[in-house]
Amino acid sequence: MNNSTNIQIKEQTLEAAYHCWLQYNKLDSSIEEHYQTYCETLVFLDHSQIIQAAKEELVQGITSMIHPPSVHAVPLEKPSIVLATYENNQLKDYGINTTVLDHLQEDSYLIQTITYKNHHTIAIIGKQDKGVLYGAFHLLRLMQMRENLNELAIIENPSNQIRMINHWDNMDGSIERGYSGDSIFYKDYEFIHDIKRIKDYARLLSSIGINSLSINNVNVHKVETNLITKEMLPSVAEIADIMRCYGITTYLSVNYASTIEIGNLPTADPLDKDVQQWWIEKTKEIYQHIPDFGGFIVKADSEHRPGPFTYNRTHADGANMLAKALEPFGGLVFWRCFVYNCLQDWRDRKTDRARAAYDHFKPLDGEFMDNVILQIKNGPMDFQVREPVSPLFGALQNTNHVLEFQVAQEYTGQQKDLCFLVPQWKEVLDFDTHAKGEGTTIKSIVDGSQFDLTYSGITAVSNIGNDMNWTGNTLAQANFFGYGRLIWNTDLTSEEIANEWVRITFGHDDEVVSTITKMLLHSWEIYENYTAPLGVGWMINPGHHYGPNIEGYEYSLWGTYHFSDCFGTGVNRTIKDGTGYTSQYYPENTSLYDSIETCPDNLLLFFHHVPYRHQLKSGKTVIQHIYDTHFLGVEQVQDMIQKWKQLEQNIDSYRYKNVLDRFNMQLENAIEWRDCINTYFFRHSGIQDEHSRLIY
Amino acid sequence: MNNSTNIQIKEQTLEAAYHCWLQYNKLDSSIEEHYQTYCETLVFLDHSQIIQAAKEELVQGITSMIHPPSVHAVPLEKPSIVLATYENNQLKDYGINTTVLDHLQEDSYLIQTITYKNHHTIAIIGKQDKGVLYGAFHLLRLMQMRENLNELAIIENPSNQIRMINHWDNMDGSIERGYSGDSIFYKDYEFIHDIKRIKDYARLLSSIGINSLSINNVNVHKVETNLITKEMLPSVAEIADIMRCYGITTYLSVNYASTIEIGNLPTADPLDKDVQQWWIEKTKEIYQHIPDFGGFIVKADSEHRPGPFTYNRTHADGANMLAKALEPFGGLVFWRCFVYNCLQDWRDRKTDRARAAYDHFKPLDGEFMDNVILQIKNGPMDFQVREPVSPLFGALQNTNHVLEFQVAQEYTGQQKDLCFLVPQWKEVLDFDTHAKGEGTTIKSIVDGSQFDLTYSGITAVSNIGNDMNWTGNTLAQANFFGYGRLIWNTDLTSEEIANEWVRITFGHDDEVVSTITKMLLHSWEIYENYTAPLGVGWMINPGHHYGPNIEGYEYSLWGTYHFSDCFGTGVNRTIKDGTGYTSQYYPENTSLYDSIETCPDNLLLFFHHVPYRHQLKSGKTVIQHIYDTHFLGVEQVQDMIQKWKQLEQNIDSYRYKNVLDRFNMQLENAIEWRDCINTYFFRHSGIQDEHSRLIY
Repeated sequence: MNNSTNIQIKEQTLEAAYHCWLQYNKLDSSIEEHYQTYCETLVFLDHSQIIQAAKEELVQGITSMIHPPSVHAVPLEKPSIVLATYENNQLKDYGINTTVLDHLQEDSYLIQTITYKNHHTIAIIGKQDKGVLYGAFHLLRLMQMRENLNELAIIENPSNQIRMINHWDNMDGSIERGYSGDSIFYKDYEFIHDIKRIKDYARLLSSIGINSLSINNVNVHKVETNLITKEMLPSVAEIADIMRCYGITTYLSVNYASTIEIGNLPTADPLDKDVQQWWIEKTKEIYQHIPDFGGFIVKADSEHRPGPFTYNRTHADGANMLAKALEPFGGLVFWRCFVYNCLQDWRDRKTDRARAAYDHFKPLDGEFMDNVILQIKNGPMDFQVREPVSPLFGALQNTNHVLEFQVAQEYTGQQKDLCFLVPQWKEVLDFDTHAKGEGTTIKSIVDGSQFDLTYSGITAVSNIGNDMNWTGNTLAQANFFGYGRLIWNTDLTSEEIANEWVRITFGHDDEVVSTITKMLLHSWEIYENYTAPLGVGWMINPGHHYGPNIEGYEYSLWGTYHFSDCFGTGVNRTIKDGTGYTSQYYPENTSLYDSIETCPDNLLLFFHHVPYRHQLKSGKTVIQHIYDTHFLGVEQVQDMIQKWKQLEQNIDSYRYKNVLDRFNMQLENAIEWRDCINTYFFRHSGIQDEHSRLIY
Repeated sequence: MNNSTNIQIKEQTLEAAYHCWLQYNKLDSSIEEHYQTYCETLVFLDHSQIIQAAKEELVQGITSMIHPPSVHAVPLEKPSIVLATYENNQLKDYGINTTVLDHLQEDSYLIQTITYKNHHTIAIIGKQDKGVLYGAFHLLRLMQMRENLNELAIIENPSNQIRMINHWDNMDGSIERGYSGDSIFYKDYEFIHDIKRIKDYARLLSSIGINSLSINNVNVHKVETNLITKEMLPSVAEIADIMRCYGITTYLSVNYASTIEIGNLPTADPLDKDVQQWWIEKTKEIYQHIPDFGGFIVKADSEHRPGPFTYNRTHADGANMLAKALEPFGGLVFWRCFVYNCLQDWRDRKTDRARAAYDHFKPLDGEFMDNVILQIKNGPMDFQVREPVSPLFGALQNTNHVLEFQVAQEYTGQQKDLCFLVPQWKEVLDFDTHAKGEGTTIKSIVDGSQFDLTYSGITAVSNIGNDMNWTGNTLAQANFFGYGRLIWNTDLTSEEIANEWVRITFGHDDEVVSTITKMLLHSWEIYENYTAPLGVGWMINPGHHYGPNIEGYEYSLWGTYHFSDCFGTGVNRTIKDGTGYTSQYYPENTSLYDSIETCPDNLLLFFHHVPYRHQLKSGKTVIQHIYDTHFLGVEQVQDMIQKWKQLEQNIDSYRYKNVLDRFNMQLENAIEWRDCINTYFFRHSGIQDEHSRLIY
């Protein structure tokens, strides 16, 4: 008896971790009463695979929260939830004016509380069936948020057209930069075929509006090169079939040298006729298996991956060759701009990795076919805790492109340390490039509106794996959720997203909501406090990228230096006597960053080499700032642990312990960072901490 | 025609690399004439497996150098080479006085040119058959050295009783710290059974006097734990059978936790009766397969290996338990003293890894059984380019022990960089511990004479693998050769050993001999010049241990720090305000090292933390010394390359190119070291090079 009860509790709590933000917990009776009338009856006026998914989700959600609804395919004269696509004729009877959808994106929808034959009714109208599905998830979210449904008048149109996630999964089951177990798709070089888990993943993706998914690592190794062969395409199609039901298009990362590796050709020269023909045939073959295949992700001429440079061709030559093969089918090429010299000589002070993406791709602006989309990381380096925004945004005006974020916390604590990244992403999206004068924000560029791009949007590296809770640290689910919510609506605030996630994930207990929301919102700042200071980056262990190693990248080939000496620290990227990187921005930002007077404190060491006693705008010296933030960061982690412990009674044991374990790892990591950074700079500068705290 | 000639040349040159110092090249006619009379006839008055090996070697060598000899088993009345053991009755006829061997070691021998029935005769008399074999190799070496044989009167008695090599071979075929290909014993977790190669290896070992061999890694992993099971012992016996013919005893490294891993016992507690009984039975079983099995090598409680500490027992408890099982068979336990805390906190300035071996083992002196031999690395750290001698030597007076060197160049260039280690080993052997007053040298301790040890001698980590030339860099054969020669006769000079090796390996061309001998003799100093300065050590890449990484070990768990800051560098190991390590020596050395005034320059940073402007005994400041030696080191490598190129016509193409390739790698490595070290210290100190050379 006792035993079985324990087992049940344990399973329930594992399930809570697994369900992420789709908890659908039983509602309190007060709110249940309010929802009950609407939820007794569901009316679906259209039919498609995707609407079937909406139906399943609504039935599952409402059954779980209230009771099982009855489902119908024709209008009924009673309170109900009615779902349809925009052009359905029966909508006239309901008197809903859907003209607002005329000029909105294909994924848009409206949710409206109306009166139909004297009955209160909620209408969910998608411009297409995908909108119906998004609307269904939206309604379920409102119910989980306990919103009043009586006067809904919602019109949703996604900020971005392409809302993508890139997996870096390898077929051996490992995930490059994965911190949540292994791949849900592959194991031991085979597909796993875990239909249920993949479907649950599709539900999570769709619930936050993701519509594009690439399912293998951009570093396409030997076995994965075969994903586009007839042996493996049926298994890819199986995944694509599931994703399709949730409005998600499937993409593959391809090996640029496929013609050599699997095509029996001697070359991968993009101007070679045989190479071109091979890709045309290959693409045809792919579309036979997956009629709505999305296209290719390509990491070429980057970090030892093959590319057109081998044949003295440009990235445009390479990308256009693939684009031509995809064009007849409406397929796309995502061509990554993460191209730099990864065999740099540390002695060479002129080469600046930060310049590389701009230097490579700005001159090619306008040379790409319309179905090529350049994929640009948010910053010029590589997903550091703090970087300026890539100057390629605003510089590319005649080339389709997307912004790339990293939901996986490669450099930001690896889902051991808490680091809610929405505030970082917001800062990027709100950055003003001044490309077309004041207000040319990143978000207005990547949503395609500033330069009238055919294709645009945002993509990101996935943070999920086959851990029971998907994301290693349960709180890292907030990054997955927040990524989708933010790129759907870039005007949402970090607070709104955090609050929403906490409520639908952990429930509405005031202390839980307030504590976790605050933790999330401060976590990026806390992580930054105890790691590399003032935007300098890279003081991390080479290779696995966790924990401090202050000089680990200092004499390396990777172009990642901070040049600390006994006088000062930081990278001089100014025009006058630095690498000139600042000149890649529009004048307003060039002058902002180029001058030590105006450069923001938090990026000072990214742009300038300064003496340790240089005074920040905060009034502190650089060295004292380093000491203070590093002592503070550890205290803040200790504080989070205390606060988390106070929630023990209010959170199920599995998730409570999962997070507590990771907080303890974070504390150990934070202490190591604090002591290494402080000791390193104390030894270099010889300057004592003003408060005489313990430095080793 | 042309083709086959080329192939022949190529094969010949590969063979030359393979044969190492047993070239047995055709002699010039002048010297051939001199040798011819003796070498026409070989007379073997005794018979054994080992004497059979001597016979084979002499026949092979003489056939190759001159022409095939005739072999007899009874005295003949003509010029001949006569071989016998000391107690052979027929020796009386020859009138040889062998009483000199009475008090010499069992491996001793004499070689004497005598007159027998009016015929000039060379007699090789071993105290046992092993001495006969060593004598045969000695004669062949004399002939390769073109020595006059007419008045030989040689008595050889090895300095050391145990002359051992330890393999760090794993059964997957890899070699821990191997730089010469893979194992010659194992591949893919199976024995290779390459009888010919193993026999040739035995010939090389025996030719330089090695009499003990352990054939698997001291880190005994999962599969290797099974080497002492009935499934694998026949294959071990196969190797032992070959080695036995060359006077070499075979040992195995064992997993201290074998009782748990393969014995189905719940414990490895050395005081547990079942554990003791298991080892007794196991040892019996081993000796059934290998009647002259040597015994066990044990790395316990070290770098995550299991050991008696788990059960709150001492190393003496652990070692004695194994020794008891081996005792009835005359087997030995080599118990390594490489025990230290490898999870040290870098913040902890009191713990000093250098102290560890002494602190662990000195208190146990006298507690070990007589067939336990403690195995002590030459220095207190781990085979760095420069370390003081371990203070355990001289401190242990009632415990058998051997000295451990590393022929494999783990920290000294990995057989890419040339580093002839005999001069380093000589320095160790000649070090005066003052344990029993002046002149208590290391060599007089490890040869057993100072403290009257039952077992004593020297062991070393092998540098060979399955590369055609055995040692990766052909010049690294000199370390293999030199190790054997030196520990046989610790009074040989580095010059003698180098000269001998060059002549018998590359021939007698004056330029070749002079150039390579000089290179060898300077190579350690050159390597030291461009790597970690003044004895500080460890500025090497963690893990693989090649190339510079100045702070790579600075904030690590390994107890390997240099504490450089903007004022100075080095480790304070003094009594007054350091770790007190200097107190582990006898007073003469304590005061030598403890005082900054008397501490030798080349160990200054090992013992003291000094300001960059501290003046060395050389008159230079520490910082200027660092700059000067690092610029010099690279120039010296460039000079060696030039000199090597001048030998192109005098050395076969395979060996010429093999060495040239490695010199080019060495140059690249030296430049990287120079620039990293100079830049690091320039950045730290802010002090300019007096000669304004390029520092980055």
